[in-house]
Parts: sequence; structure tokens; C-alpha cells
Amino acid sequence: MLPFARITIVGLGLIGSSIAHGVKAYMPAARVTGYDADPAVRDIAIRIGLCHDIADTPGAAVIDADLVIFCVPVGAMGAAAAAIAEDLPDDAIVTDVGGSKASVAAALRRALPKATIVPGHPVAGTEHCGPESGFASLFRNRWCILTPDDDTPEAATGRVRAFWEALGANVELMSAEHHDLVLAATSHVPHLIAYTIVGTASDLEQVTRGEVIKYSAGGFRDFTRIAASDPTMWRDVFLNNRKAVLEILQRFTEDITALQRAIRWGKGDELHAAFTRTRAIRRSIVEQGQDDAGPDFGRSHR
Amino acid sequence: MLPFARITIVGLGLIGSSIAHGVKAYMPAARVTGYDADPAVRDIAIRIGLCHDIADTPGAAVIDADLVIFCVPVGAMGAAAAAIAEDLPDDAIVTDVGGSKASVAAALRRALPKATIVPGHPVAGTEHCGPESGFASLFRNRWCILTPDDDTPEAATGRVRAFWEALGANVELMSAEHHDLVLAATSHVPHLIAYTIVGTASDLEQVTRGEVIKYSAGGFRDFTRIAASDPTMWRDVFLNNRKAVLEILQRFTEDITALQRAIRWGKGDELHAAFTRTRAIRRSIVEQGQDDAGPDFGRSHR
Repeated sequence: MLPFARITIVGLGLIGSSIAHGVKAYMPAARVTGYDADPAVRDIAIRIGLCHDIADTPGAAVIDADLVIFCVPVGAMGAAAAAIAEDLPDDAIVTDVGGSKASVAAALRRALPKATIVPGHPVAGTEHCGPESGFASLFRNRWCILTPDDDTPEAATGRVRAFWEALGANVELMSAEHHDLVLAATSHVPHLIAYTIVGTASDLEQVTRGEVIKYSAGGFRDFTRIAASDPTMWRDVFLNNRKAVLEILQRFTEDITALQRAIRWGKGDELHAAFTRTRAIRRSIVEQGQDDAGPDFGRSHR
Repeated sequence: MLPFARITIVGLGLIGSSIAHGVKAYMPAARVTGYDADPAVRDIAIRIGLCHDIADTPGAAVIDADLVIFCVPVGAMGAAAAAIAEDLPDDAIVTDVGGSKASVAAALRRALPKATIVPGHPVAGTEHCGPESGFASLFRNRWCILTPDDDTPEAATGRVRAFWEALGANVELMSAEHHDLVLAATSHVPHLIAYTIVGTASDLEQVTRGEVIKYSAGGFRDFTRIAASDPTMWRDVFLNNRKAVLEILQRFTEDITALQRAIRWGKGDELHAAFTRTRAIRRSIVEQGQDDAGPDFGRSHR
């Protein structure tokens, strides 16, 4: 039993193209239609055979869909939804993959006041972007969070859950507000910190850019990976999850100030205690299959 | 031509045991003696055949060495050097692998006033520690920084350089003070930030530890790897490179405050500009072979 038979993906970047590959791999009887606002992306998608069909207009993309998935930056969700409003079939279910949920749910609802909407967020990705960066297994053993509200029919949520499970994901339900706080801590603020330290290091007068690159294996390079993520996507996340991000940032600043003070005053015991408790978290992440067990993320050491 | 024929490694953790493996792999005619202050570590080293010989005392370890390498936390360098002072042959060269250089060079000089010392730091590692975590290729295509001072004989520096090159490393010379500033930016402050955010996320009242772990693939898990590094080693680095760490931290705090303000006031252009310039750094790091080119550090996506 397929949860959906005619799936439309709006936005063919890393996540959209990975869903297309995943549907073809794990739900081969379903038909995938793709659309992207950028004609160059549509051309690439046609050339690599990403979907069964690439539509020329948003309306044509959804005309016979039973599932429409918006895979555009969160700041573009409202406009993308408005563009298909007239052509969306009454019985279609709408979902998305945006990294912030309260603002996206509101934007989709404004654009599609009568549609059945199940907002979602697969917690998965790489630092690469574009229609050629996707792959079918991106969501395997990752979590996908759905944030239905009180008006969302349970049957619709169940079908979207079945869709993500077919792609290999585990599904969890929570409120949009709770999602936004959890992700501010586990994704948004970590990305902001990574972008910041990469910028700080490259602005030093006494240390050259070449030195920062050469000696990056001491830790810095780990940060540059997520600091290479798509700037538009991340700008939108921060603008759309402002409150939670600012709250977590405030806590982070307090915590780093405490460690800074411990360094200044030579409080070795405080530092040692702070550095010890974090290992248990890493162990749990590896045990629960959310990261590679091999040292150094399993990087090859040739 | 071997740069050294009888090499003594004091401290058999990740770096010390990797040097032992590397010498056996790439300089098979050299003899490696190991010593560790912890008898349990010495027992493991004997059991796994890490070195040709494991000494029972620091003095016995160095008695016929032509190279002595200290691979202990930077706060323990002075005591480790004092423990071998009486038995160190006059013509032996002393080096180390400590992550801060000015304070280590001073501690080694105090303990060994007449020895030939070439302080060093291979910029390489994983989050694992202990005598069983080492491997021969850890230093291949990584940089090793040597910080000889005006009194260091050039011939001694040349032999230590040849040693690291035989292990596969590239070698660069610079002053201890410059090393400490470069590494504060590319390694020490990144580690402090990682330890901090992992702590911040696990202290949230509204978000459970389980949620932080489940949804870590959104970025957080990257930080937990380096936040799982050895607490004693890192406590010592921060206490011994205080000035440079505090200077870089101050700049980081200014930079993140500017981004925080941009988020609060909805300045999307500032965010987009900050997130765009960091990609070039990542590209250079990958081009120069300092990180995997594959997405997600080459993690497997099964």
C-alpha cells in the first residue's frame, strides 16, 4: 500500500532531489513530478532524469498530485504555496521540509487556507546543495519531525508519517513551538557558531588565511563543513526562528563566558569538569546510530 | 639514512602510540622504547606489542636514546622532563607534541637546562585516546609545526624535521608565540566552543537529553566529536595558552554578538553576506587535502 501515488516536489535542491531519488528507490510505483522556480535547475533535473516529469509552472506541477512537498528555503514557503493555490486538488495533502516550523505552518496556512497541511522537517542533510547533490538514502535512520496542529486530520498525519517511514526515516510528532526550540539547540545555533568562528579566524590580522587552512585539522575544519551550507536557506532559518535562536544563543553566551572566566583565573577543575560531562552525549549519539562510531567521523586516513 | 636510531616515547596515548606505530611502519630499522607513568598503560603497550621495549622507569626509558619525545598533556611536560633529567644522554635531542608551545618550551628548558630541545606540535588527532587508539598514518599529509628558538642548533631542527617527514607529515617552522596564536584560532577556541554548545544543549530545561541526541544530525553531532576529546589534555591547553585563547575568544564573542543583533533586527543581508564568505575557506581546505571532499566528511549513508 503506497501512502501516495502522485507526489509533487516543489524545489529541487539537496532535500527535494533526495526525496525524488528516495521515492524512485523505495516507492517505485509512485509517480514523481518536480518543479523548481529556477529554469536552470529544471533543465538539470530533466537531463539527469531526476523525476518522472518536470513541470514548467507551479500550477501544472500540482494539478493531479495527492501529495505536494515544499522543499524551498523557509522564507520562500509562503510564495511557493501561493503559486499553486489555484491548482491544488481538494484532496491533496500538503507538507514541507522547512527547518523552522511555526512560521512556515503560518505561511502555508495563509496561502492555502482550506488545504490539509502536515508541516514536517527531516533532520538530515549535507553541506552540499542543488539538484545533483541528492541521494536516496539521505533520510535512512534519520528522524523526521511532523508538527500537525489540532485541526490536522489524523489520517493525513498518518499518511505523511507512512511516506517518511517508506523513505527510511523515523517519525516523531511534536508542536511547532517545541520543534523550533529543539532545533535551535541542535542545529540552528550550532550552525551560527560555526559560521562565526570560521569568520573570526579568517579576519585575524596576525594569522594568514593560508595558515588557518593549513592547520585546520586541529578542529577548525569540522566547523567549516557546516559553515559551507547554503547561505539563503540559513538566513531564512534565523529570520524565521528568531525567538528560540536568541534564547539558546543567550544561554550559550553565558556558558562560554563562564569558561572564559575559568581560563582567565586558572580554574582547572572547572574546565576539567565541563570537558568531562560532554563525552557521555557523544557516546549516546553513536550508540543510537546518529553518527559514525569510527574515529574522526570515519574519515579516511590514507 | 635514519634521522634517529633509538627513539623514546614518553606518554603512550593517541599521539605517542601513533608515533610508535609510525616509526615501526616507516622507519623499521629504528628501535622504539616506550614509557608511560600509568602502569596499566604500560601493561597494555606490552600486551599489544606497541614498542620494541617498554621501560619501567623514566630514567631507564631514555638511557640510550638519541631522540626523546614527550607525548603527555602540556601541564605534565615539566615533570616528565624532570624525571628523565639525570639519565638523558648528552647528545640526545628532546622534542614534544604539545598543543601549546611557549609554556611547554619554557617548562622543558627549566627541567633540562643543558639539553638540545626542538619543541614541536603535529596538528593531527582524533577524539579517541589511550594506547590502543594510535595508528601509523595519523600524521600523513598533516602539518607538524616546530618552534626552535635562536639557541636551537639548526642540525637538531633538521633531524627532527626529517623524523616527522618520515612519518608522512609536512613540517613548518615558526615562533612559539605565533604557533600559540594560530592554534588558538584553528584548534583551541573551536574546541572550547564545541564543549560549550554541547553543555548548553544538555542543560536546557524544556528540551530533554534524549531529544538533543535524536535530532543531533542537524549539526550538533559534529560538535560532539571534538567535545569528546581528552579532558585533561584540553584543560592543560587552555591553562597554558591563556593569553592567545582569551584574545581569540574576545573576537569570537564580538562577531557572534554582531550576528545575534542581525537576527534580532531582521537584517537578512548581513546574515547572507556572513554565511557566503565562509564557503571559500571550506573549498580551500578540501583542495589542500586537509579534509575529505565527500559530503558529510565522507560519512557512510547506508
